[in-house]
Amino acid sequence: MKIIQPELIVDKEKCIANIKAMYNKAKQNNLIFRPHFKTHQSAEIGNWFKDFGIDKITVSSLDMALYFAENGWNDITVAFPVNILEIGKINFLAERIKLNLLVESLEVVEFLEKSLNHKINIFIKVDVGYGRTGIAYYQLEHFEKLSILISNSKYMQLAGLLTHAGHTYKAQSKEDILKIKDESVERLLNIKTHLNKDIMLSYGDTPSCSIAENFHGIDEIRPGNFVFYDLMQYQLGICTFNQIACTVACPVVSKPAQDRMVIYGGAVHLSKDRVRNNCGTEIFGQVVKLNDNLTWNKQLENLSIISLSQEHGIIMIDEHTSTDINIGDVIGVIPIHSCLSANLFNHYYLTNGEKIKRI
Amino acid sequence: MKIIQPELIVDKEKCIANIKAMYNKAKQNNLIFRPHFKTHQSAEIGNWFKDFGIDKITVSSLDMALYFAENGWNDITVAFPVNILEIGKINFLAERIKLNLLVESLEVVEFLEKSLNHKINIFIKVDVGYGRTGIAYYQLEHFEKLSILISNSKYMQLAGLLTHAGHTYKAQSKEDILKIKDESVERLLNIKTHLNKDIMLSYGDTPSCSIAENFHGIDEIRPGNFVFYDLMQYQLGICTFNQIACTVACPVVSKPAQDRMVIYGGAVHLSKDRVRNNCGTEIFGQVVKLNDNLTWNKQLENLSIISLSQEHGIIMIDEHTSTDINIGDVIGVIPIHSCLSANLFNHYYLTNGEKIKRI
Repeated sequence: MKIIQPELIVDKEKCIANIKAMYNKAKQNNLIFRPHFKTHQSAEIGNWFKDFGIDKITVSSLDMALYFAENGWNDITVAFPVNILEIGKINFLAERIKLNLLVESLEVVEFLEKSLNHKINIFIKVDVGYGRTGIAYYQLEHFEKLSILISNSKYMQLAGLLTHAGHTYKAQSKEDILKIKDESVERLLNIKTHLNKDIMLSYGDTPSCSIAENFHGIDEIRPGNFVFYDLMQYQLGICTFNQIACTVACPVVSKPAQDRMVIYGGAVHLSKDRVRNNCGTEIFGQVVKLNDNLTWNKQLENLSIISLSQEHGIIMIDEHTSTDINIGDVIGVIPIHSCLSANLFNHYYLTNGEKIKRI
Repeated sequence: MKIIQPELIVDKEKCIANIKAMYNKAKQNNLIFRPHFKTHQSAEIGNWFKDFGIDKITVSSLDMALYFAENGWNDITVAFPVNILEIGKINFLAERIKLNLLVESLEVVEFLEKSLNHKINIFIKVDVGYGRTGIAYYQLEHFEKLSILISNSKYMQLAGLLTHAGHTYKAQSKEDILKIKDESVERLLNIKTHLNKDIMLSYGDTPSCSIAENFHGIDEIRPGNFVFYDLMQYQLGICTFNQIACTVACPVVSKPAQDRMVIYGGAVHLSKDRVRNNCGTEIFGQVVKLNDNLTWNKQLENLSIISLSQEHGIIMIDEHTSTDINIGDVIGVIPIHSCLSANLFNHYYLTNGEKIKRI
């Protein structure tokens, strides 16, 4: 397998180890493990989860649900507020699989009640403090109204409360992440107590699920990013560098100056998510040496992507760094946010050279 | 044509007007017009250029060159440093079309000399101050060495000097953009004088080409973004809001709070490029009302995207704004950077409902 242009390389061994670790954690804590497949969007990688006996998944769009339903998944949660314009897809899926949807308003529940032809499970989306979607955790009356409406419905079954505590991504330490998690669970339990119903609590986000040891109160976890991890998770202290399971292989095309290298690998391969390095500089990816067998080892500390054009990546080389990287070499770039980088490729390569498809 | 999920809408009339304006400017100034097709990457939109008699184009990868060559384009410049690993594609194209490539190092020229089987034209890439790729404008000896090597080659013909003055995107005013342009042209002319050869000067970037009136010294222009324009260009003062020719149609899926609306439309539809609005807030897109016929008019000033997840966009609504937008409505989002948004769709819709393909 000779790389000649940007390609996303997946280290299957590392993925399997990441899946196994999360699977074991779920098992030990008696949690339903419903991994989010928006990160990899690949039926082939989905099969690696199947090998662990996993049969419930999360996705972020109905199109992804259709794709994975076609590939044999029969219990799918679409972790995105119901888009009423896609009712056709909802009914199509509801007829064929166990479909779990998210609602956060009376009007959407009323719409579904009129428009559904088949049974679905409903989670009420709770905003535990992230401030993106969901009903704010303190609006207890709102939860109550929705719960009653759903319970009286012909086709809807109230499955539980669901949240994604995405503010863990902005936490400054592991302690902060655990604090957010504990506070979030407390808020969910408070709503559950108020509703006084035997319903599930479904919890998201890779940072919490990766480091938490105590899952008291939670019934189901839905982490996604952990299958690949990435530089953002590494910086958060969520994973080791060695656990990161994908890299973007990029040819070096120019060394126009002593302090700069240009790679074929830009915004259309890496996405424009960014983190700050130790010096406070915004970076768009971290360089690693790519071995001949497409594996990679340690990061080349002083080599990171400092700017991205559509197809170009610019690597700054500081004056203390000597590098033996030449034009025509292929380096690896560890992406900042693996979900967004993976989404830019319609196929991936495994380290053994095997090509696998994305949705 | 009923929109039910995020789609990129192209206003053909606006595109044609944008193409016509740039075509006329090139004609009046006796310039070769070689538009950059990386923005739209669509054979169908390419045909709109053909109708003006345009027969030379620019692309940013060999894969794009292959696609447009298949679609009848016979004179293509790949405005990206030669990636020696793709020599197979280079020879394939060089046999079939007039192929123009960019070099910026002796070793790549030496590689090409050994590896080419067919004639190609070569531009030497000049860094006029942007600091991305190219030989720094003041390294006159380096230009001389390259020029001699190319001139003595069997398969390479020195066509000229080429630059992309991308630092215009960071300019604070139109005057600054024109100053960068004048300085860049002066630097190119200085190299040309030093080489004492009858070669072309090829000039890039939409900001300069959109506002400059004086193209003295330049032989060819290669703007790309102007076909669509976008919010970044509008903020730079390069285009009017009405000239922006694409928008991403996004369903409204939730209104979780008075100050917030959630759309189906995220980083995988809009990209994560951003600008600052008048209040200094980073925004990822500007909301417009989408008419039933998929056209759009004025911007909804107080509605912009303030954060993006993979599939979600969050619109902040300030307390002084009343909105009649409801769940189930489809709004338009003017992208920050149209090239990157367009790259995220494998097809576009025209306002008449016609579906056209991207590469």
